[in-house]
Amino acid sequence: MKTYELQGFGLDNLRLVERPVPVPGPGEALIRMRAVTLNPRDLGVIDGFYFPDLRFPFVPVSDGVGEIVELGPGTGRFRVGDRVAGTFAQGWNAGDPPIGWHTRSLGGPLDGMLAEYVVLPENGLVRVPEHLTDAEAAALPIAGLTAWQAVAEVGRVRAGEAVVVQGTGGVSVFALQFAKLHGARVFVVSGSAEKLKRALQLGADAGVLHTEEPDWDRRVLEWTDGRGADLVVDIGGSATLGRSVAAIRPGGTVCLIGIMSGAAADGLQLVPTFLKRARLQGINVGSRDMFEAMNRAIAANGLRPVIDRVYSFDRAIDALKALGEGRHFGKIAIEFGSPQAGNSPVSA
Amino acid sequence: MKTYELQGFGLDNLRLVERPVPVPGPGEALIRMRAVTLNPRDLGVIDGFYFPDLRFPFVPVSDGVGEIVELGPGTGRFRVGDRVAGTFAQGWNAGDPPIGWHTRSLGGPLDGMLAEYVVLPENGLVRVPEHLTDAEAAALPIAGLTAWQAVAEVGRVRAGEAVVVQGTGGVSVFALQFAKLHGARVFVVSGSAEKLKRALQLGADAGVLHTEEPDWDRRVLEWTDGRGADLVVDIGGSATLGRSVAAIRPGGTVCLIGIMSGAAADGLQLVPTFLKRARLQGINVGSRDMFEAMNRAIAANGLRPVIDRVYSFDRAIDALKALGEGRHFGKIAIEFGSPQAGNSPVSA
Amino acid sequence: MKTYELQGFGLDNLRLVERPVPVPGPGEALIRMRAVTLNPRDLGVIDGFYFPDLRFPFVPVSDGVGEIVELGPGTGRFRVGDRVAGTFAQGWNAGDPPIGWHTRSLGGPLDGMLAEYVVLPENGLVRVPEHLTDAEAAALPIAGLTAWQAVAEVGRVRAGEAVVVQGTGGVSVFALQFAKLHGARVFVVSGSAEKLKRALQLGADAGVLHTEEPDWDRRVLEWTDGRGADLVVDIGGSATLGRSVAAIRPGGTVCLIGIMSGAAADGLQLVPTFLKRARLQGINVGSRDMFEAMNRAIAANGLRPVIDRVYSFDRAIDALKALGEGRHFGKIAIEFGSPQAGNSPVSA
Amino acid sequence: MKTYELQGFGLDNLRLVERPVPVPGPGEALIRMRAVTLNPRDLGVIDGFYFPDLRFPFVPVSDGVGEIVELGPGTGRFRVGDRVAGTFAQGWNAGDPPIGWHTRSLGGPLDGMLAEYVVLPENGLVRVPEHLTDAEAAALPIAGLTAWQAVAEVGRVRAGEAVVVQGTGGVSVFALQFAKLHGARVFVVSGSAEKLKRALQLGADAGVLHTEEPDWDRRVLEWTDGRGADLVVDIGGSATLGRSVAAIRPGGTVCLIGIMSGAAADGLQLVPTFLKRARLQGINVGSRDMFEAMNRAIAANGLRPVIDRVYSFDRAIDALKALGEGRHFGKIAIEFGSPQAGNSPVSA
Repeated sequence: MKTYELQGFGLDNLRLVERPVPVPGPGEALIRMRAVTLNPRDLGVIDGFYFPDLRFPFVPVSDGVGEIVELGPGTGRFRVGDRVAGTFAQGWNAGDPPIGWHTRSLGGPLDGMLAEYVVLPENGLVRVPEHLTDAEAAALPIAGLTAWQAVAEVGRVRAGEAVVVQGTGGVSVFALQFAKLHGARVFVVSGSAEKLKRALQLGADAGVLHTEEPDWDRRVLEWTDGRGADLVVDIGGSATLGRSVAAIRPGGTVCLIGIMSGAAADGLQLVPTFLKRARLQGINVGSRDMFEAMNRAIAANGLRPVIDRVYSFDRAIDALKALGEGRHFGKIAIEFGSPQAGNSPVSA
Repeated sequence: MKTYELQGFGLDNLRLVERPVPVPGPGEALIRMRAVTLNPRDLGVIDGFYFPDLRFPFVPVSDGVGEIVELGPGTGRFRVGDRVAGTFAQGWNAGDPPIGWHTRSLGGPLDGMLAEYVVLPENGLVRVPEHLTDAEAAALPIAGLTAWQAVAEVGRVRAGEAVVVQGTGGVSVFALQFAKLHGARVFVVSGSAEKLKRALQLGADAGVLHTEEPDWDRRVLEWTDGRGADLVVDIGGSATLGRSVAAIRPGGTVCLIGIMSGAAADGLQLVPTFLKRARLQGINVGSRDMFEAMNRAIAANGLRPVIDRVYSFDRAIDALKALGEGRHFGKIAIEFGSPQAGNSPVSA
Repeated sequence: MKTYELQGFGLDNLRLVERPVPVPGPGEALIRMRAVTLNPRDLGVIDGFYFPDLRFPFVPVSDGVGEIVELGPGTGRFRVGDRVAGTFAQGWNAGDPPIGWHTRSLGGPLDGMLAEYVVLPENGLVRVPEHLTDAEAAALPIAGLTAWQAVAEVGRVRAGEAVVVQGTGGVSVFALQFAKLHGARVFVVSGSAEKLKRALQLGADAGVLHTEEPDWDRRVLEWTDGRGADLVVDIGGSATLGRSVAAIRPGGTVCLIGIMSGAAADGLQLVPTFLKRARLQGINVGSRDMFEAMNRAIAANGLRPVIDRVYSFDRAIDALKALGEGRHFGKIAIEFGSPQAGNSPVSA
Repeated sequence: MKTYELQGFGLDNLRLVERPVPVPGPGEALIRMRAVTLNPRDLGVIDGFYFPDLRFPFVPVSDGVGEIVELGPGTGRFRVGDRVAGTFAQGWNAGDPPIGWHTRSLGGPLDGMLAEYVVLPENGLVRVPEHLTDAEAAALPIAGLTAWQAVAEVGRVRAGEAVVVQGTGGVSVFALQFAKLHGARVFVVSGSAEKLKRALQLGADAGVLHTEEPDWDRRVLEWTDGRGADLVVDIGGSATLGRSVAAIRPGGTVCLIGIMSGAAADGLQLVPTFLKRARLQGINVGSRDMFEAMNRAIAANGLRPVIDRVYSFDRAIDALKALGEGRHFGKIAIEFGSPQAGNSPVSA
C-alpha cells in the first residue's frame, strides 16, 4: 500500500512510500481509507510545534473515513463494509477525558490517516451518517466534533441564544451550522468580505469584517441590545481573547479553540473576566459518545459539512500547502483512489 | 370596567360584572387586557380541584397579555404602552422556585386575567415578542413556558435527540415546536388522526394513534433503533407514566406535566424506573428568566404559537366550555374589544 | 474450587458445589474471592422476581472483593496481587449508562461472586481503598455506589443541605455517611428505636420513628424551618414516595432506590410533584468512574462502611436468610477462608 | 453619626466626618453597623484602580454586618433587631448575574459600609448565622461568598476531590475551610512557613512554600498520584495562572479570583489549556441565594471564619494600611462602638 510518512519535521520531509498492508490484531479493524480532511493542527504536528519528540517515520493527518475490510479476533461492534471514522482521542469513550488522553490522539503522537490502509482498535471508531460523501464524513472527527463540543456540550446552546463565531475555517463553519441547528442567532467575525457573504448564505444572522471594525465586541453588544453573547467560539487566541470576553453576557462562555494569532493569553485581562463571570473553556475535540451524538444531529437534520476543495491522494502535499495559505472556507479534503461521482464540490 | 368573577365553584357561578378600574400602587402597573388564553388548569381552579379554600369573588384565567396604561410610583422596568404578559408564578424571577411559590400564582389562588383591567407588580411582567398577535402572545405564560421549561431547561434538548409529545393541546404543540427549534426529532402520540396529521404538518417526524397502537412505547423504541427517547413530555399522568418510562433511553427524562388520565402515579412501576435510571421531573411552568429566554427563542426564530380559536370577551364562558370538550389543537383564546385585523386564525 | 450455584428459583435450590477454577481469557483477570456482601436484590434474583428467564445453574450475589491471582493476555490496568472489586454494571465505565446495561450486571443476569474464584474483564474491576477490611470493601459495589450516586452525583449534596434517609440498611447507612462527609445535615426515618440511636451515633442530626410518627414529612418540614429537604433517599417505594415528595423543598430531589414496601408508585400524587417541581430520579448503582470517585472520597476521609455481621463462606445460606429477616444495621458480609484478624466487627 | 468618606483617590483622602443618620425609604432598612471586614478590593477602589470615575465623597468598604434599627414602608423580609449583612452585588438575587450587576456593588461604585449607619434595600440583605461574632459575620459577604461560589457552586467540590488554594488571605482561608467541609483534600501554596503551618492546623492536607518550590504544580501532580487537582482557587493572577492550569486534571477547573501578581493573563498558554480541557471561571462574589446557602452550611457545621485582627472604628485607616502590608492570615476586621466581650480573637 501507499502511505505518506514524515521522516523529519517540515513539509519537505513528507514522502509518499510503499509499505505492507497492516494486519488487525485482537480488538482491531483494518480500514481501507476513502478520504481525509486537514486541520491546522496537522501542520503544527508536521512542523514540530506540538510534539518535539515525535518519532519518525510518522504518518500524519488526524481526520479520515474509510471502509472496514477486515476485523481482528474479539471484535463485535462493527461488520466488514461499515463506513467508519477514527476518533481523534483514542480511548476517550465517555465522561471526562482520561488522564494522558493527549498522548493517544491520531495524527500525532499516534500515527494518522494519510495512508491507504489503517489499523485501529474498534473502540476507537464510529459509524458516520449515510447521507454524507466520504469527504464530508472525513470532516467530522476534529473540526466537526470540536465545534459540537463547544456549541452543544459546553455552550449547551439553546434557541434564541447569541453565538459569535470567529473566522470561516473548518471548526468555525461547523460551529455556525450547529448553532443554527439549535435555533440560535449567529454573528460572524471575518477578515474577508467574500467569506462573510458565504457565512451569511449559510445562515449566519449578522457579521462584521474585523479588518474594518476591529472593535467587533462593541458590535456584538449592539446586536444583542447590550446583553452580550451567550457563547463565543474563539479561534484567534492571543489577539482575540480580550474582545471575546468583552463580547459575552455576564455568565457567558468563551470556548478556547484556536491559536491563529498566537498561543499566549496575553490579550486577556482578569478584571473583566471577573466582572463578566466569564467562563473560558479549553476544548479538546471530544469523546466517542459526543461523536455519536453529533452524528445523530447531523443525520436527523440532513446537515452537510462544507468542503472547500478536494485533492487527490497523490496531491496531499499541495493540499497541506493550501491549508497553510488559509484561503479556504470550510474544509480541505483529500480523497483516495478515483473520486466518487458527485463527491467533490470543487476539485482542486 | 367589566370583569368575570367566580362567586362559587363551578362554571355556573362565573358572572360578568362591573367593577371600578383598579389603581396601581408602588411598584405596580395597570394593564388594559387585550387577550387571554385558556389552560386545563383554569377549569380545575373553577371546579375547586386545585384550591378548595379559594376566596370568592375570584377572577379566573392565568394567561393574558395587555398594554401598560399607567405605572405606579417606584417603577422603572417598563413604559406606558409596552405590551406585556403576567408571569404565572409571581415572585419567581430566577433560580430555583421560592418556598411557597404556588400560593402566588395568577388565576388561582391570586386573581387572574379575565378582566378588562388588571394591576400587577412590574416585577411580575415581561415584554412579549413583537411579531406575535395578542392571542398568540397570550398563549405564552403557562402553555408556552411549561413546554419551554420541559424542552429547553429540564430536557436541555439538543439537535438529533428524540422527543415524544403526548397529545396536541397547548403545552404539547409548544413542546413540538420548541423541540424542532432545537433540531430534535419529534414523535407524537395522539388520539385523533386529524390532529396527528396537523402535528406532522407542524414538523413532527413521526407519530401514532394510541387508540390503534396502545403500546406506543414499543413504537418509540423502534423509531429510535432500540435506543429510546431522550425526553418524553408526559401529559397523560396516571395512564401514560408507565409507558413514558418504557419509551426513554437509559438516563432519559420524563417531564411530568399533565393529569389528563388521572392524578395518581399508579401506572408507574419502580423497577423499570431504576433500570432506566429514569428522571421524572415535575414541571411548574417556570421563572421570569426562563420566560425571557423563551421570548428570545420565539423572536429569533419567528415562531408562531398555534391558536385553535378566538372568542370574544363576552363569550368567555363558551370558550371555557370548548376547552372542557377537548377538541382543540393548540390554544383557545379570548380577545378583548374588537379583534385586530388578521389577529384571529379562526373566529369561533 | 467451591461455588454456590442456584439450580432453580428459591433459596432451597442454592447448593454448594465443586467446579474447576476458571481460566482468564484475553482482557480478563482471575480473582480469588475474599469477601462478599449481600443486598436485597440478591434475594430478589434468587426468588425469580428480577429475572424470570434466568439460566441455571447460576452463581448469585453481586458484591464482592478479592485478589487478582492471574491476568489474561492483553491486560494492563492491574497487577497480580491487586485487591479489587467487580463493578456491578459491567461495561458502564463513564457517562450515561449504555443501552442494555441491565443485561450485563453481576449477580443477575450475569453470574455473581459467591464462588472461591471468579473471572471478570479487567475493565469491570476497580481497586478498593487500602484501609478497608475485605468485608468493608465488599460493601461498596452496590450499596456504597448506589448511595454515592444518589448523594454525590444526582443530589450533588453540598454543605448545609438537608438530606433525609429512610431506614438503616446498607444503602441508607452509606447515604448517611456520604451526606455527612459533604457537610450536610441528615434526618433518619427508622422503624426501630435502637437503629435510630445507632444512626444518631454515626452522625445523623435528627430522626423519627415512622411507627410513632407516620407523618414524618411534617417533621422534616419543621426540622428545615419550613423549607423542606434538598434530597430524600427513598428506600420504601410504594408507601413512602408520597411523603418523600411532601418532605422536599421546591426544586428538591427524591432518589428512587428501594421497594421495601412495594414496587408500584401508587403512593405518589402528581399535583404535589408539579407544585414541588420535584425531581424523582431512579438510581441504578453507578458507573466505574463514579466507583473510583467514591473510593477517593472514602480513602481521603478514612470512612468505614458499617458491617453488621460477618458469616463464613459455608454459612452463606444463613447469611441470606438473615438478610431476609431485615434486622441488620448496615451490611451483612460473608468471608472466604479464615477471616483476617480484626476483620470482623461481629462474627455471626 | 460618624462615617468615613473618601474625598479623592488615595488613603490620604479618607476622612472621618459627621453626617445625619439616613432615613430608610420604601423597601429599605436602616442598619446600625457593628463590624466590617476588609478586602484587597477596598484598597483598589480607594486607589482609583477599579472605578476611575468614582463620585466623591464616597464611603468605602464592601463588607459589613449590623442590626436593623428601622424599616421603611413596604418592607417585610426582616424585623427590627435582625442582624444582617449587605449583599455585595445588590440586585443579584438568584440565577445568573444580571446585566450591569457590577455597577451596583457595595463599596464601589455604590457607597459602602464604613459608617455608623447605613441604609440598604431589604432585598439586598441576608441574616447571618447566630453563632458568629460580628467580625466573623462581617467576613462573609465578599471573602466568604467568593470562596463559596468557587468551591460549592462552580467547583461543586465533592468528597475525595483535590483542591489547591493559593495563599492564606481571606478568600483562600475560606476556600480551605469550605473544601474541607465537603470532604475534599486541600493543598496550600504559601509564601510563609508560619502561615502554611497555620493552614495545616486549620485542616489543609498538604502544602508547599512557593518561595522554595516555585514549580508547585509538579508537587500537586505528585500529591494526586499524577491525576491533577480537581479545582485550583487562583489568587495570584498573572504569575500563577499557567501553573494553575498545569496543576489540574483533564477536565478540571481554575477559579479566577485574584490579581495579587498582576491583572493580565500573560502567564497563561492556550495549548495546555486545550490539552487539559481546562475550565477557567471568573468569580464575581455571588448571588443572594448563594449567600443564604453558604450561611446554612456555616450554621450547620459551626464553621468559624478566621479573623486575623480586630481594629476599632477610629483606627480604620490603620486597618487598611495593615491590609496593604499583607501579613494577615484570614481577615482584618473593624468593630464599631465598644467591642463585645470575647468578640475579638486578637485586638490590634
